[in-house]
Amino acid sequence: MPSGSEKKDKCGVFGIWGPADSAPRTYYALYAQQHRGQESAGIAISDGEQLDAHLGHGLVSEVFNEETLARLEGCAAIGHNRYSTTGSGRSCNIQPILQEFSGGQSAIAHNGNLVNAHLLRKQFEQDGHIFHTSTDTEVIFHLLAAPNHQKKSDPLYHALQHLQGAYSLLIMFPDRIEAVRDPWGFRPLVLGKTEDGYDCVASESVALDAIGAEMIREVEPGEIVTLSEEGVKSRRFFADIPSCHCIFEHVYFANPSSKLFGDTVQLVREKMGETLAGELPVEADYVIPMPDSGRSAALGYARASGIPFREGIVPNRYVGRTFIKPTQAQRTTAVQLKLNVIEEVVRDKRIIVVDDSIVRGTTTRGKMVQLKKAGAKEIHFRVSCPPIRHGCYMGVDFPDPNQLIANNRSVDEIAEYLGVDTLHYLSLEGMLGCVSKDSGQYCTACWSGDYRLDVTHPISKLELERYQMNMFDGMR
Amino acid sequence: MPSGSEKKDKCGVFGIWGPADSAPRTYYALYAQQHRGQESAGIAISDGEQLDAHLGHGLVSEVFNEETLARLEGCAAIGHNRYSTTGSGRSCNIQPILQEFSGGQSAIAHNGNLVNAHLLRKQFEQDGHIFHTSTDTEVIFHLLAAPNHQKKSDPLYHALQHLQGAYSLLIMFPDRIEAVRDPWGFRPLVLGKTEDGYDCVASESVALDAIGAEMIREVEPGEIVTLSEEGVKSRRFFADIPSCHCIFEHVYFANPSSKLFGDTVQLVREKMGETLAGELPVEADYVIPMPDSGRSAALGYARASGIPFREGIVPNRYVGRTFIKPTQAQRTTAVQLKLNVIEEVVRDKRIIVVDDSIVRGTTTRGKMVQLKKAGAKEIHFRVSCPPIRHGCYMGVDFPDPNQLIANNRSVDEIAEYLGVDTLHYLSLEGMLGCVSKDSGQYCTACWSGDYRLDVTHPISKLELERYQMNMFDGMR
Amino acid sequence: MPSGSEKKDKCGVFGIWGPADSAPRTYYALYAQQHRGQESAGIAISDGEQLDAHLGHGLVSEVFNEETLARLEGCAAIGHNRYSTTGSGRSCNIQPILQEFSGGQSAIAHNGNLVNAHLLRKQFEQDGHIFHTSTDTEVIFHLLAAPNHQKKSDPLYHALQHLQGAYSLLIMFPDRIEAVRDPWGFRPLVLGKTEDGYDCVASESVALDAIGAEMIREVEPGEIVTLSEEGVKSRRFFADIPSCHCIFEHVYFANPSSKLFGDTVQLVREKMGETLAGELPVEADYVIPMPDSGRSAALGYARASGIPFREGIVPNRYVGRTFIKPTQAQRTTAVQLKLNVIEEVVRDKRIIVVDDSIVRGTTTRGKMVQLKKAGAKEIHFRVSCPPIRHGCYMGVDFPDPNQLIANNRSVDEIAEYLGVDTLHYLSLEGMLGCVSKDSGQYCTACWSGDYRLDVTHPISKLELERYQMNMFDGMR
Amino acid sequence: MPSGSEKKDKCGVFGIWGPADSAPRTYYALYAQQHRGQESAGIAISDGEQLDAHLGHGLVSEVFNEETLARLEGCAAIGHNRYSTTGSGRSCNIQPILQEFSGGQSAIAHNGNLVNAHLLRKQFEQDGHIFHTSTDTEVIFHLLAAPNHQKKSDPLYHALQHLQGAYSLLIMFPDRIEAVRDPWGFRPLVLGKTEDGYDCVASESVALDAIGAEMIREVEPGEIVTLSEEGVKSRRFFADIPSCHCIFEHVYFANPSSKLFGDTVQLVREKMGETLAGELPVEADYVIPMPDSGRSAALGYARASGIPFREGIVPNRYVGRTFIKPTQAQRTTAVQLKLNVIEEVVRDKRIIVVDDSIVRGTTTRGKMVQLKKAGAKEIHFRVSCPPIRHGCYMGVDFPDPNQLIANNRSVDEIAEYLGVDTLHYLSLEGMLGCVSKDSGQYCTACWSGDYRLDVTHPISKLELERYQMNMFDGMR
Repeated sequence: MPSGSEKKDKCGVFGIWGPADSAPRTYYALYAQQHRGQESAGIAISDGEQLDAHLGHGLVSEVFNEETLARLEGCAAIGHNRYSTTGSGRSCNIQPILQEFSGGQSAIAHNGNLVNAHLLRKQFEQDGHIFHTSTDTEVIFHLLAAPNHQKKSDPLYHALQHLQGAYSLLIMFPDRIEAVRDPWGFRPLVLGKTEDGYDCVASESVALDAIGAEMIREVEPGEIVTLSEEGVKSRRFFADIPSCHCIFEHVYFANPSSKLFGDTVQLVREKMGETLAGELPVEADYVIPMPDSGRSAALGYARASGIPFREGIVPNRYVGRTFIKPTQAQRTTAVQLKLNVIEEVVRDKRIIVVDDSIVRGTTTRGKMVQLKKAGAKEIHFRVSCPPIRHGCYMGVDFPDPNQLIANNRSVDEIAEYLGVDTLHYLSLEGMLGCVSKDSGQYCTACWSGDYRLDVTHPISKLELERYQMNMFDGMR
Repeated sequence: MPSGSEKKDKCGVFGIWGPADSAPRTYYALYAQQHRGQESAGIAISDGEQLDAHLGHGLVSEVFNEETLARLEGCAAIGHNRYSTTGSGRSCNIQPILQEFSGGQSAIAHNGNLVNAHLLRKQFEQDGHIFHTSTDTEVIFHLLAAPNHQKKSDPLYHALQHLQGAYSLLIMFPDRIEAVRDPWGFRPLVLGKTEDGYDCVASESVALDAIGAEMIREVEPGEIVTLSEEGVKSRRFFADIPSCHCIFEHVYFANPSSKLFGDTVQLVREKMGETLAGELPVEADYVIPMPDSGRSAALGYARASGIPFREGIVPNRYVGRTFIKPTQAQRTTAVQLKLNVIEEVVRDKRIIVVDDSIVRGTTTRGKMVQLKKAGAKEIHFRVSCPPIRHGCYMGVDFPDPNQLIANNRSVDEIAEYLGVDTLHYLSLEGMLGCVSKDSGQYCTACWSGDYRLDVTHPISKLELERYQMNMFDGMR
Repeated sequence: MPSGSEKKDKCGVFGIWGPADSAPRTYYALYAQQHRGQESAGIAISDGEQLDAHLGHGLVSEVFNEETLARLEGCAAIGHNRYSTTGSGRSCNIQPILQEFSGGQSAIAHNGNLVNAHLLRKQFEQDGHIFHTSTDTEVIFHLLAAPNHQKKSDPLYHALQHLQGAYSLLIMFPDRIEAVRDPWGFRPLVLGKTEDGYDCVASESVALDAIGAEMIREVEPGEIVTLSEEGVKSRRFFADIPSCHCIFEHVYFANPSSKLFGDTVQLVREKMGETLAGELPVEADYVIPMPDSGRSAALGYARASGIPFREGIVPNRYVGRTFIKPTQAQRTTAVQLKLNVIEEVVRDKRIIVVDDSIVRGTTTRGKMVQLKKAGAKEIHFRVSCPPIRHGCYMGVDFPDPNQLIANNRSVDEIAEYLGVDTLHYLSLEGMLGCVSKDSGQYCTACWSGDYRLDVTHPISKLELERYQMNMFDGMR
Repeated sequence: MPSGSEKKDKCGVFGIWGPADSAPRTYYALYAQQHRGQESAGIAISDGEQLDAHLGHGLVSEVFNEETLARLEGCAAIGHNRYSTTGSGRSCNIQPILQEFSGGQSAIAHNGNLVNAHLLRKQFEQDGHIFHTSTDTEVIFHLLAAPNHQKKSDPLYHALQHLQGAYSLLIMFPDRIEAVRDPWGFRPLVLGKTEDGYDCVASESVALDAIGAEMIREVEPGEIVTLSEEGVKSRRFFADIPSCHCIFEHVYFANPSSKLFGDTVQLVREKMGETLAGELPVEADYVIPMPDSGRSAALGYARASGIPFREGIVPNRYVGRTFIKPTQAQRTTAVQLKLNVIEEVVRDKRIIVVDDSIVRGTTTRGKMVQLKKAGAKEIHFRVSCPPIRHGCYMGVDFPDPNQLIANNRSVDEIAEYLGVDTLHYLSLEGMLGCVSKDSGQYCTACWSGDYRLDVTHPISKLELERYQMNMFDGMR
């Protein structure tokens, strides 16, 4: 796993309706979204009447082969890249999850995190329901299947009213795919059309590129888009409220070539570098990116500052994902395995190192030690987002807040820990100035602690009671 | 798979409470019950607070290794051998099934078949419940979890009232194993005690032998036996009604050394052979068993008839289970792969071939061709049970009735198809005379078509309504 | 592995020339010879110009699948079942071994053991040759490739003059298969013809049966039979000398339906039982075979003695080969895993237990304990061959002589160790009276210590010098 | 496999003498050299008396796990990364190759290609030797084992006199590792010392960095360096002749942070870009690297030309190596899977794209189509080495010369094929001006066709005769 593995996204999704080769196209799309989750992958297909699926642990290219893809014959497919945080050993947690209830078979692929899932689950359990996964996603089936929802003309509409949190969802039924984005638009979800006219939906536009599809537009927050034989249909399940886009998608997660929340990722990152250069100027010989996460911002920084861009740290490509951990005795010797410093570039030089973020700080510190050892005269570390001080409840898997280096440490203390001469983080305002929407449209919680949703008591007791009544009145 | 694979049993179960090495002991017990199901295997353990499990496709010895067993640390375990009939590709169908509901975690291992499972499932689905396996077993969780059952002092007691069909069940909770046998006693279930004093329960006594445990008694039809730190406790959930033991366990399934329904399997089989010899005597040079299924009956036949017992057909031992099917061109040459005829024994001889049963008849016919080709002068085929003409709904996986050779064919027609000189099946009365209980205590449905339970409309509409009311009144 | 695993044969071979489906036919033949070696398997094919091979650890059915067989396209094939004794972890030891030398490509499959292989190897190494396996077989390539052999008209003829020991060999060149049997005829090798007219050769006739081929005759000791497009050709490479057939093939190794050294195995075994009954009569209730190795002899014993044959010990079928060893604590409880005693049969009875041989004695003793525990009143153990007291150097892999129970122990001492009331081994004369050739035509070394070949200094110093001169004079 | 996979290197090697954890250190070193060969990997160890090895197909991280590494206990190890060109299915071809001969066990790991291997092999075969791999490397064992070499005081010295071609060799004997570099120094080989004082040797200095070792010096062309308990010893086996270093190691193969032939790779690549900028200036908006192969040269180009460096093409990271090939229908849509164009960067811009080389041209052409489609106004393609027109016989695995796009095509024709506005290759002189040694010290054969060694008739008939006499006079 590359250096950025301390910040993990949960999942990418993709769906397509229509072509006979739905499964192979989904395979390529998942392949292009591999950066959104490397722990497991799955594809569910519909042949118009029945659903089937193939799921497995590992990379998309490891989970599927020509034989498994060939068996997934269908006119529609949804797929999922997962970074599983809990219960990873239990294969039943891999998505898309397939279940059966009175509405027939359905399969769900989910990117995001439901903050009230545990409360809903507890309630369902009290009402005699059975759970077989440890995912937050499974409650969605139970909400869908609730008799008072099923008897309504649009069960999904009603089920979604109960969800709080981040969800870019694909729900496949034998006759349609429902693409849903939460009212806040935390996670991306885009609509596309292939060259031969089939409708598709993906977490990132890079997945559309991968199958030669054109991006049409984003699925809007609070919108349900239905893909079926009748083409694309849209309906809203929630009023238009201010968005709360995860700006960390721009900082780190998304592929640089993707378009998210109205901006192209690469351009945002370059601009962050430019802004960073202006916030705390420093004299130096070279601007050096931390590969590959700091590359775009470093280019912007170099451009704005006029300081030459150099490659001074090179990654070890070609290597696989798994890696035997060195013993304590070997640890000091093994720190260079993933990134090598080019001594001739950095020796006796004043260098500015740019990265997208610092999470725990241990890996970064190891690299600074290497740079010093290689003879760097001065190290000025620049980070293209503010200090991460708070947990994320909307689908980014940061470590525990008390493992975050910026938690309870001043920037000076961090600089001292890293062993760098100066350290500067991009300001919150600076960062928000790099994206085109109004600053109120973005979630900044991991930096500011300002959560839009109540993440501690996500639903009030009153609401809960109302909810319970609502849920099961169809059974009386 | 050996020659008898046309008749498949669903599953063996084993459970033990107490020892620190519960999982390895369960492994050996499942190993000894491997003949009851070779498609998948699983062990679930409890450490007193949490359940965990390891499951997989294949033989017990393939699913588990020292590492996986070592990870299953617990003071109690239940295990399962499965022959999965449907959805075998879906790993979530492998037992023991682990689920979570308001009562906490539980795991179920089931031998048998519930004839009203589909009706219960449909009802639960109408009430908004979700199913994630295609097994009949999963409804048991939903019944257990039903709020009106959970609020009672003994939810299991109430849940079991709804089940119709064959079930020898082990249900493990973190603090106990509940061993349940259906009121009819279709499938075996025996209680044992290890040399070091731990209580255990198994489908067959051979599993107790395998771990050096002594058989104490059978779990009685309609009884729940609880294994826990407090030792063994018993309670009844159903009145004492006439039993309906599956006599095919004696004819074919069970290990010859097991004790079932009050008889030792080997002795019953020998007696069937003796009885068979008396029903239609014939002059011959040798009695030859079809290995290994006809061996015990052939010995009884030889003893009673005074005709010498010879081995004239030998199995190909040591070979694995999977086997590449010959192409059409190779098919005629490959028929001898599993059984070889000893030409010098059968040439110019009048032989009596004894087997336990004939299902489709194709394999038997192939062997008869081989015997004729090897020079057998006369072949008299004897079967140690009556013609199988009806399906089983209680856990034996016969093929479709219209694939059964005895369905719509007279014995003479079958003899002609097999190419044998005479053919005789043991009479129903003859068979029932070989077991020690009263003949009304056995299920003879696959021969007689006389099903004790209504297998077509297992529960009446009225009952269904009552059932529905009963099920969910706790939610009001 | 079944109970007889203490005596291991090295290998079975099979070859066929002509059909387009040579590899699948070889697969079935190896499958039928699986009892001759379960550690690894391999098939080499020729397409007339090139050789190719697929090899692997495990059962034939595990090493090959439809895909690997399909890739082995050729008009001829040889195959090998191996029980590898040394270097089993090194995949280069699996046969057929493929090598290249000046004569082109060749592949060798070998059943037997060369007693002078180490001397030849040492000599070759001194002359600069390289070895890449630890098998005795590899020297055959070096002998074949020796320039002074290659320049002769029949290099194989000359190469074989140097070999001492047991060898039933198949050597495949692109244009032919040479089937060779050592001058003493230690191991079996039979010639057959398929129904569609292709020539084939196998260790045992059961492999011919498996592919619907007819056995034509044995390859004679000292004979080379060539299979090629021109049909079958024969030549001798050694004068006709007295044979030295391994009689243990009849006692234990071979499939009961095979014909070996002029006799059918099953009939020889029954006769051994009959003879055994006459040597030391005893009164008893039942004759019980040790399954499955003592079954044939027990039948003969029962027939001759008039004492009823009963099945009192039943094997655990269906189980796989690997098996997790019980810990010390579980050991006593796990001894019953492979064989179960039927208590009702043996209780209070005087029983005669018949087995084919006793090697270390530990397994046998365990069974006797079980029988006593089950209530057997008297146990009379009968063995259908004399006490094994000496090692085999001709291809049977007995344990070290000092691990053989009969080594340095009287029959009475063995009886005491086993805990049986009486013990009798078939006499050497008795055994030799059960086979049809003159007693001087069989190897009895493991019982008598009378080795036909010098197994300690297999070739004299003088011979060695001659040999060396001979070997490399072509290089001068 | 990344975009550069058309040019394959054969292999990396690593060896270390002394530490108890030799195998894990070798693992990390091979991991760091993974870019030199991804098809198979192996480690051989010595415990001072015996050699052992573990080998397998796949990445280093796939071939080894903690268990396999733990089994490789020894005080010394050599390892190998391989890109196998022929016989890849045959596991015996994986290196290090282990063999046994009169000198005992030895293991060889080889980077390079022996141009006279086939002639030597033929000669050995004529003298009765056996070959079991299809590698060129195997002849080295036979040369070493030749009696007239073995009787000399330094057999290796004499064996090496016969080798022609490229070879950076590690030969491990139980008591030492001999590190050998051919007299021309085609492939790199460097000597290092770990922080705790153990001697080691590697293809590239990046492997030394990976285990915290310091690079001491290069092994010199024509030198043998012995690593053993007595430390490092050096001797020469060939006179000092002009070197013939593979400059393509600088252009493409080596890790940018490695030091080769006296230069740091990254600096050479940047200088190539600078030189390229001066050779055919063009006006443009951006310099865009082809990731990741053109990155270093593009930076140099931008620096020298003053044209801004931009990232306009981004790779799809995280994806695995294998990849299901799209069907014809999907092919056009799947071309973007590995590299994505950032439309907003290139649209309406004049761009200079820099890559290190063009081999077949098909992949490059696909990217140019993408760039045009994204709206690039002008594309000026620049290549940091001359056109590759000839095969390599020294260890680089280019495709057949007639598949090379520059073979028989002018630069203009190539530009037209690629669909670019201008195309320029770095001149041979320009390239040679970027490295610090005299231009006569480098091999330029793939560009110039000027092979230093006779690759068609590598040794004359006269030499061959002399050679034969020499080789086997010890046997007379």
